Amino acid sequence: MPQLRIALGQINPTVGALEDNSALIFATVKDAASRGAHLVVLPEMALTGYPIEDLAFRPSFVDASRETVSALARQLGHEGLGQVAVVTGFLDRADACVSRPGAPKGSPQNAVAVLYAGEVVARQAKHHLWNYGVGDEIRNFVPGDALTVIQVRGVDVAIAICEDIWQDGPSDAADAAEAGLLIVPNGSPYERNKDDDRFDLCSRRAREGACALAYVNLVGGQDELVFDGDSLVVDAQGALVARSPQFVPDLLVVDLELPAATAPMPDPDTSFDGLTVQRFVLDDQPVAAYEPTLTTLAEPLDDLAEVYAALVLGLRDYVRKNGFRSVLMGLSGGIDSTLVGAIACDALGAENVFGVSNPSEWSTEHSKTDAAELARRTGLTLETVPIAAMVDAFRKAVDVDGLAEENLQARIRAVVWMALSNQHGHLVLACGNKSELAVGYSTIYGDAVGGFAPLMDVPKTLVWQLAQWRNADAARRGRQPPIPENTISKPPSAELRPGQLDTDSLPAYELLDDILDDYVEQDRSAPELVEQGFDAETVERVVALVDRAEYKRRQYPPGPKISARNFGRDRRLPITSAWRERLVATPPAASHERMPPPGPTSST
Amino acid sequence: MPQLRIALGQINPTVGALEDNSALIFATVKDAASRGAHLVVLPEMALTGYPIEDLAFRPSFVDASRETVSALARQLGHEGLGQVAVVTGFLDRADACVSRPGAPKGSPQNAVAVLYAGEVVARQAKHHLWNYGVGDEIRNFVPGDALTVIQVRGVDVAIAICEDIWQDGPSDAADAAEAGLLIVPNGSPYERNKDDDRFDLCSRRAREGACALAYVNLVGGQDELVFDGDSLVVDAQGALVARSPQFVPDLLVVDLELPAATAPMPDPDTSFDGLTVQRFVLDDQPVAAYEPTLTTLAEPLDDLAEVYAALVLGLRDYVRKNGFRSVLMGLSGGIDSTLVGAIACDALGAENVFGVSNPSEWSTEHSKTDAAELARRTGLTLETVPIAAMVDAFRKAVDVDGLAEENLQARIRAVVWMALSNQHGHLVLACGNKSELAVGYSTIYGDAVGGFAPLMDVPKTLVWQLAQWRNADAARRGRQPPIPENTISKPPSAELRPGQLDTDSLPAYELLDDILDDYVEQDRSAPELVEQGFDAETVERVVALVDRAEYKRRQYPPGPKISARNFGRDRRLPITSAWRERLVATPPAASHERMPPPGPTSST
Repeated sequence: MPQLRIALGQINPTVGALEDNSALIFATVKDAASRGAHLVVLPEMALTGYPIEDLAFRPSFVDASRETVSALARQLGHEGLGQVAVVTGFLDRADACVSRPGAPKGSPQNAVAVLYAGEVVARQAKHHLWNYGVGDEIRNFVPGDALTVIQVRGVDVAIAICEDIWQDGPSDAADAAEAGLLIVPNGSPYERNKDDDRFDLCSRRAREGACALAYVNLVGGQDELVFDGDSLVVDAQGALVARSPQFVPDLLVVDLELPAATAPMPDPDTSFDGLTVQRFVLDDQPVAAYEPTLTTLAEPLDDLAEVYAALVLGLRDYVRKNGFRSVLMGLSGGIDSTLVGAIACDALGAENVFGVSNPSEWSTEHSKTDAAELARRTGLTLETVPIAAMVDAFRKAVDVDGLAEENLQARIRAVVWMALSNQHGHLVLACGNKSELAVGYSTIYGDAVGGFAPLMDVPKTLVWQLAQWRNADAARRGRQPPIPENTISKPPSAELRPGQLDTDSLPAYELLDDILDDYVEQDRSAPELVEQGFDAETVERVVALVDRAEYKRRQYPPGPKISARNFGRDRRLPITSAWRERLVATPPAASHERMPPPGPTSST
Repeated sequence: MPQLRIALGQINPTVGALEDNSALIFATVKDAASRGAHLVVLPEMALTGYPIEDLAFRPSFVDASRETVSALARQLGHEGLGQVAVVTGFLDRADACVSRPGAPKGSPQNAVAVLYAGEVVARQAKHHLWNYGVGDEIRNFVPGDALTVIQVRGVDVAIAICEDIWQDGPSDAADAAEAGLLIVPNGSPYERNKDDDRFDLCSRRAREGACALAYVNLVGGQDELVFDGDSLVVDAQGALVARSPQFVPDLLVVDLELPAATAPMPDPDTSFDGLTVQRFVLDDQPVAAYEPTLTTLAEPLDDLAEVYAALVLGLRDYVRKNGFRSVLMGLSGGIDSTLVGAIACDALGAENVFGVSNPSEWSTEHSKTDAAELARRTGLTLETVPIAAMVDAFRKAVDVDGLAEENLQARIRAVVWMALSNQHGHLVLACGNKSELAVGYSTIYGDAVGGFAPLMDVPKTLVWQLAQWRNADAARRGRQPPIPENTISKPPSAELRPGQLDTDSLPAYELLDDILDDYVEQDRSAPELVEQGFDAETVERVVALVDRAEYKRRQYPPGPKISARNFGRDRRLPITSAWRERLVATPPAASHERMPPPGPTSST
């Protein structure tokens, strides 16, 4: 069987940075070529970054993507890299691909280009557009209906783009087209446990397609998404052959023995399952036999290591790709802001992390000493700005008490952070976790301010686990555990009135997170929750809190998605909604009586 | 030809309020029956409110919708209204409708139910899902593939749901099915000039379908959408027969002479254009001849009256449907907050409107007198809370100057508003306009705070026009014009430093709004803008400002959409994006040189 050395470029492009991304692809191909690769595959939309959302509607951007990919092909030719076959994702439009009947002319497409001999020799647009969860591709793209098969060194190679292998069809088509290898460029964002699903899927599709499968994914952060890489190669029996490490750029070079192309060349175009097969012969001569190189078989990270890495990369890339250098956060000595401080130090270096302690008359002594201890252990810069005088000035101007007074303190702190941010150019981080965001346990324009929210998809119980994992990991590596033990062990409190504890207002977090998982992520009804064994009154209270906090979530900054359903693009609910889960499953017969109005929603 | 009296119920349901909405539909049918109607048509998703977004994924909500529509049918039967044919929108699931092959079993559907004789006798799911602009229906629903034709008093009536008439096909199917009337339940949100498009479309579809067409639309506000009603009836020649007023609930009762049903009854189900026709005979006996009633032919509002009405209704319904009674806003004496004050008084009554004046050391005398004059003219309550002492307290705590100091003042004001909101339960209104939001000319967590932003889709030049229109309209009606003339005529200023004017930082608003319209709403490229005659340096500056302000728009409160593309669901761009329009159309060849990093993005 012919040999083929393939290289999977697990790269970290930036959305919209066409020239930068093109340079990154060029450097990747050059590196792969120096390692003897015959075929280099880059991820989905590698040239534009991903997802581009409504940038797809901007004709100037589509033009620039098409021109840049052609310029890249020419550049590769000029620099002596024309004989390496390169497959890269880019933004195309339908007039260049065969698109479905009725698709608007000139509509944008999520596509790949095959670069060879200084030219773009073939293209293929994604067949199955991703339109659930955080994906809106039917809004932005028209699908393709062509299956491109390129012959590289005597081996037929078929292409499927990301969602195409999550749906039935394309691997069967690859089988029917008798391809020896199916390459799959992806932009598949991280969520917990997805790496297991991903390998199982690739393995199954390889067996169905009766061909080896090479899966290459993006790496890096883009707004609320983190791409974890995890590129991999399986053989035609579905066995794992090679795997890239997660959350870092990588060039995975793999030698494969693949069946020789059998189709007559050039073969008349054929059609399977609605897909027209288009064959392009780049080079029909197999390479002379050579000694295979060693390959990488990275071990996937365990669950907590993976989540922590996602948070670090998500933060680092948001900061870097938006032109910031440093971050600032309020440090209360509590577990959330402390974990954010540790993540920020890991992401950006302690020299770029600025903490602000804003003690009030209700602040405990440990809130100050624990924040100072974090600073001592990590090396971040801690500044203390007491708020008593500012609180007094407001109390003289406006007459408030109760919740309004508690919120006042939180908002005065936020004004201090924003003033320091504006003065020094730091990006402010919001430190709230997913449990708080779910039930609205935060002060809008107070602790909720910030440009990025590292923990917005991390439930409180997972916050504690991550803090413990980070300390244990440091200990394993013989380093200083960054997080003060007292911060982990003390009961959580907002410290906005004397002796306040979170459990005054909320169920214990272990219980709360269980209910939230079932209600928010699984869409279980209130009667189902009660049937599962949760206390009815608690279910009713939690569900009402979640439903009423939608307006606060709308104004919250983005943060990295780590769960199957985050509070960003994954869950899109109306703010104005009178729907309330009822504990009794069957609604009463409709009557003329008016329902109570949707409850006095507090702006707090 | 048989006569038929139809009633179109232009109602204002609340999303999620199933029992309330059911009671509203019942009352509408009762009213229509008392006026002799044979067929009552309610809008799209009238029972659930619209759009429900991801509430569609909650099985308990789908169950409740189905149970409530059945209960409504029973109730109509019990109350002696069973012989009126009622067609109402509701949320169904695919196992009850014929859905496309491969559609997941039990998937939610945007559907209508036909209620007759105490039962749900027929259903139809929307064929063409609305998935552009602010619509995400492919995410939430599976399409239907059945065309339901009901025979009412000897007349065959076909149904098309909203988007179904914006696409080719359904009216042809109605023609092929030989229906005498096509009824079209809609959830079609307002935007400027849409009423003209709507009539033209209905007229065209009636002629294509060779049948009369009855279009009934929702009225009311739902988060960023405002439904304007504008229900109408056209005859088979496309001529307008009846029309409801915009922005108010209405029951449009119309007598039509319609062709007698010709199809054999019961007809075997037939299929046109992929749609299976399902016939249901409710009553094959034409009504005895009677004297037609007078009908309404409301004149559509002119452009400015329409926009103003949309803003008033959008605000009123957001407040009311979320359980608030009163609103609060900062009143600077400037045109934006003054117009918001006038709108709020019109929406809620002056007794529910609370303005706060927060003079600083840089505030002009007219900023105070103009705000007081607005209060005098409208009767809203004005409170004055000077901020000097609070600014001093912050200045002692943090060392800021320049932009950071300007933002500090804006944020101190916001903390005062939020304290008053928390203390008294007022909803805070953000007063920024679309031009400011486009270029980021506002202080995040300062003047941008609020639960609702009435002017967020209103460009500054239109703000002035609306203020003048409102005053002129008052004068026409012999009332006090609410907006002080000085507020309209003075040059706009943020008053955050001595002598500051908006034009220090921005082009004149007439010019700015022209560029914004072309760049934001039309997706024109920078070279195209220059070719149109705009100054290159100005284009470059405006485009850069718009691109960099995305993060601020993400945290902005919702406000009523009035344009073809608002800054909410209509325009979804990544925050992290290095794409910058270039004035030179052709990009330079890709090279190894790095592009300058995106940003530095200020948090301001």
